[in-house]
Amino acid sequence: MQQKKKTAIETTRAEDFAEWYQKVIRGADLAENSSVRGCMIIKPWGFGVWELLRDDLDRRIRDTGHLNCYFPLFIPLSLIEKEASHVAGFAKEMAVVTHHRIEVDENGKLVPTAPLEEPLIVRPTSETIIGEAFANWIQSYRDLPVLLNQWANVVRWEMRPRMFLRTTEFLWQEGHTAHATRAEAEQETATMLEVYARTLEDALAIPVIKGEKSAGERFPGAVATYSIEAMMQDGRALQAGTSHYLGQNFARAANIRYQTKAGELDHVYTTSWGSSTRMIGALIMTHADDNGLRLPPRVAPRQVVIVPILRGDDPGAILDYCESAKARLAGMSAVGAPIRCHVDARDMPAPEKRWEWIRKGVPLICEVGPRDMAQSAVTYTYRNDPDLGRQTVPLDRFAPMCADTLERLQRDLFDEARRRLAARTVDGIETWADLAAHFSADDSVPYDRQAGFVRAKWSGADGTEQKLKELGVTIRNIPFEQSRTEGKCVAGGGPATTEVILARAY
Amino acid sequence: MQQKKKTAIETTRAEDFAEWYQKVIRGADLAENSSVRGCMIIKPWGFGVWELLRDDLDRRIRDTGHLNCYFPLFIPLSLIEKEASHVAGFAKEMAVVTHHRIEVDENGKLVPTAPLEEPLIVRPTSETIIGEAFANWIQSYRDLPVLLNQWANVVRWEMRPRMFLRTTEFLWQEGHTAHATRAEAEQETATMLEVYARTLEDALAIPVIKGEKSAGERFPGAVATYSIEAMMQDGRALQAGTSHYLGQNFARAANIRYQTKAGELDHVYTTSWGSSTRMIGALIMTHADDNGLRLPPRVAPRQVVIVPILRGDDPGAILDYCESAKARLAGMSAVGAPIRCHVDARDMPAPEKRWEWIRKGVPLICEVGPRDMAQSAVTYTYRNDPDLGRQTVPLDRFAPMCADTLERLQRDLFDEARRRLAARTVDGIETWADLAAHFSADDSVPYDRQAGFVRAKWSGADGTEQKLKELGVTIRNIPFEQSRTEGKCVAGGGPATTEVILARAY
Repeated sequence: MQQKKKTAIETTRAEDFAEWYQKVIRGADLAENSSVRGCMIIKPWGFGVWELLRDDLDRRIRDTGHLNCYFPLFIPLSLIEKEASHVAGFAKEMAVVTHHRIEVDENGKLVPTAPLEEPLIVRPTSETIIGEAFANWIQSYRDLPVLLNQWANVVRWEMRPRMFLRTTEFLWQEGHTAHATRAEAEQETATMLEVYARTLEDALAIPVIKGEKSAGERFPGAVATYSIEAMMQDGRALQAGTSHYLGQNFARAANIRYQTKAGELDHVYTTSWGSSTRMIGALIMTHADDNGLRLPPRVAPRQVVIVPILRGDDPGAILDYCESAKARLAGMSAVGAPIRCHVDARDMPAPEKRWEWIRKGVPLICEVGPRDMAQSAVTYTYRNDPDLGRQTVPLDRFAPMCADTLERLQRDLFDEARRRLAARTVDGIETWADLAAHFSADDSVPYDRQAGFVRAKWSGADGTEQKLKELGVTIRNIPFEQSRTEGKCVAGGGPATTEVILARAY
Repeated sequence: MQQKKKTAIETTRAEDFAEWYQKVIRGADLAENSSVRGCMIIKPWGFGVWELLRDDLDRRIRDTGHLNCYFPLFIPLSLIEKEASHVAGFAKEMAVVTHHRIEVDENGKLVPTAPLEEPLIVRPTSETIIGEAFANWIQSYRDLPVLLNQWANVVRWEMRPRMFLRTTEFLWQEGHTAHATRAEAEQETATMLEVYARTLEDALAIPVIKGEKSAGERFPGAVATYSIEAMMQDGRALQAGTSHYLGQNFARAANIRYQTKAGELDHVYTTSWGSSTRMIGALIMTHADDNGLRLPPRVAPRQVVIVPILRGDDPGAILDYCESAKARLAGMSAVGAPIRCHVDARDMPAPEKRWEWIRKGVPLICEVGPRDMAQSAVTYTYRNDPDLGRQTVPLDRFAPMCADTLERLQRDLFDEARRRLAARTVDGIETWADLAAHFSADDSVPYDRQAGFVRAKWSGADGTEQKLKELGVTIRNIPFEQSRTEGKCVAGGGPATTEVILARAY
């Protein structure tokens, strides 16, 4: 009987991908569930990743001319009602505030008192309250465009929560813009989709497919919704950011009108776009392995960790030597920022520390013991090495080695994910029978041979999206890159109008 | 009859200080009330100030060894109940979530449905939920200290809301730490008070008085509360940050125990400390004048604004010239960061633009017209000049002039506020009659001659704090700097034990 290879994460991807995901989160100490169902505590390592990701995206949002602001957490029920035609079928699971006081009752229990005249909704998204403000602020073409963004927490009551992927409360940014012309608003929608694609690919090293959502997957009230779709290691799709062109629909509902240059009154054209802590879920399921997380250096809170091996006559000297190795990195940059290095001086056995940093996904983990010090060297492991082998480098070459390795690891993670995306995107499935067979095989094969993406022909005919759901499959998007060849719809048999990406999805 | 001097803010400080405050906020476009009572919209200029302030404080919080994280927005009612002995008399005005769905009823109205088994409180502060996590995380002395901080929105139902000063929802940071020893926790409390003092004085240019709160003003459940107190232009105090030493009180309530080095079980010692968007209120009431906001350069989203005067034959050339003036600032720093310069090319009359930036408090406002261009010069106004006079500088000297002026304006605003604090702090009031006369005179004098701070002797005897409230006055804090002279208590006549700062407060 073959012995199972020892891994830092107890449940491997092959054994149970969903359980492995939870264990990677726990093993890397990214987050944990709180006593409020569906709400998670984002722990310092997880929040550190989020901050780096957030700052990267925030810079891109500013560079494209947007200003940050902050709108209230609460939305009056009447405002939601006003837009009810848009929210039909959307986000009815919301937290409702009905009282504004708690008091001790006659039995000594705390109870809600002081009912509100009008219940308040905890924002699931802020179109309505921002639309109300836009209606007040915008009078003339001179006031346009309005280009706003906010970083905020939002709440959507989740029946089946999953850390980072679907949580009742989550952190996100939501952009909201108003424009004088359709063309400008459409350009904005495209610009922001590209901003998301750049963040995912350049910061998170996750390749994405850009495209337009089909009518069935469109944001309610939107004229067009665009998405970036990433492939997880089990072949499933994860939507990592959406950008909506809302036409004049929301402007009509919220009565956002402006005086044109010609002096006429017209409704503005609006957009909205959002991305969330869900991106961390994508990061985990794209890069983590059976030893835990692997972080692209750009979003690693610590990129280089030096673990002193405090053996021998003079542990103080070892610590000093580690600090001197760290000092070599002062002023050095890699992947666009000064190298983030940490000496882990905690009172714990060195191997335990090394494995902790491996589970946390630190790109470069160094160990320094008496022998390294004696030969003026540093021993290191790079996290991407599947064998986690050790190599030794002279201290003089340590700093340039760190910079080079970080640059290389960022590229390597992206390339690895890009190869997977290419290898597991199937082209050429033409019949319903073949499509059904392709996806139904998933139940009997390991995660790394599951169906992945199918690029297929689609007619857009009524009922075809519904039919695909019988296979547990959705149209992820209509990719911008189209082969332009003709053919028959894989779902309905009619003449195809576009190519679509089909997949099971998170 | 003397003609009233024209000011950019319609209501002057002398006419109505409270109304002037609201009008400065509106004139600078910092924030506005939303349709949810007590909740404000923080607009881009106000949020830009907040981001600079937040980033400054965040850096100091990290530099003192704290890690950022994120805890849930909601707290189960039962958890609040567990700590009810601490919350007695504290923050009972809270938003309560009782349902998790909205649906359309038979009359076509949206109504809350799906009642929660247990109501959830929208966090007014996070001691309870973080305490619960600490109890899970902390087992051994090796796990200590735990040094966490989070930036979050919190909700306390406000009956008399006022923008930035008292809003139902506000933004803040809250630090929560756990330590093995009393000494360490006390040191932490002191360190964080100093961090707040440095942010207020160095970033916001607001001088503060550091001290301990009296028992009557202590955070419920704390062993000791420390505060920084600032003086507004009407002489009133504004508490701009608090740091609490909680002893083992919260650890007992939340059952946070750890194994000591000696192998015994003991409760940890905890601290918490917070500061909020209230600091923006302090900023306004410290520095703004009858022409609007005046921003210390460190927290000015734009430090230098260049307004082109688009007259004459070639407006395009003027714009180019403005851009070339801006380009001179590339790579130049002042008050610790690259200079933030903006060319305001909007299609609006130049004087209108200039006044907008004056109201917004931009430290240095430049105007460039054909004459400036002809003589290779820039005309500028510095916001601190009470006459808002114009001066002209050759283009070659523009960049160093900007850097020097920004450095000087940061210092000048601080010095001006420091002189006010000194001038309006009265020492030597010894009797109740004199104290009462001092504060009761406020009703008949303008804002800039109102009572300010009184440094007086206090016994700490029962009833004295209550008695002070008859004058509308509270003990702001027991300042760290004490004269050590003996005397009688100004409120009760008994032998004094300390000096205190007395004032009316926001």
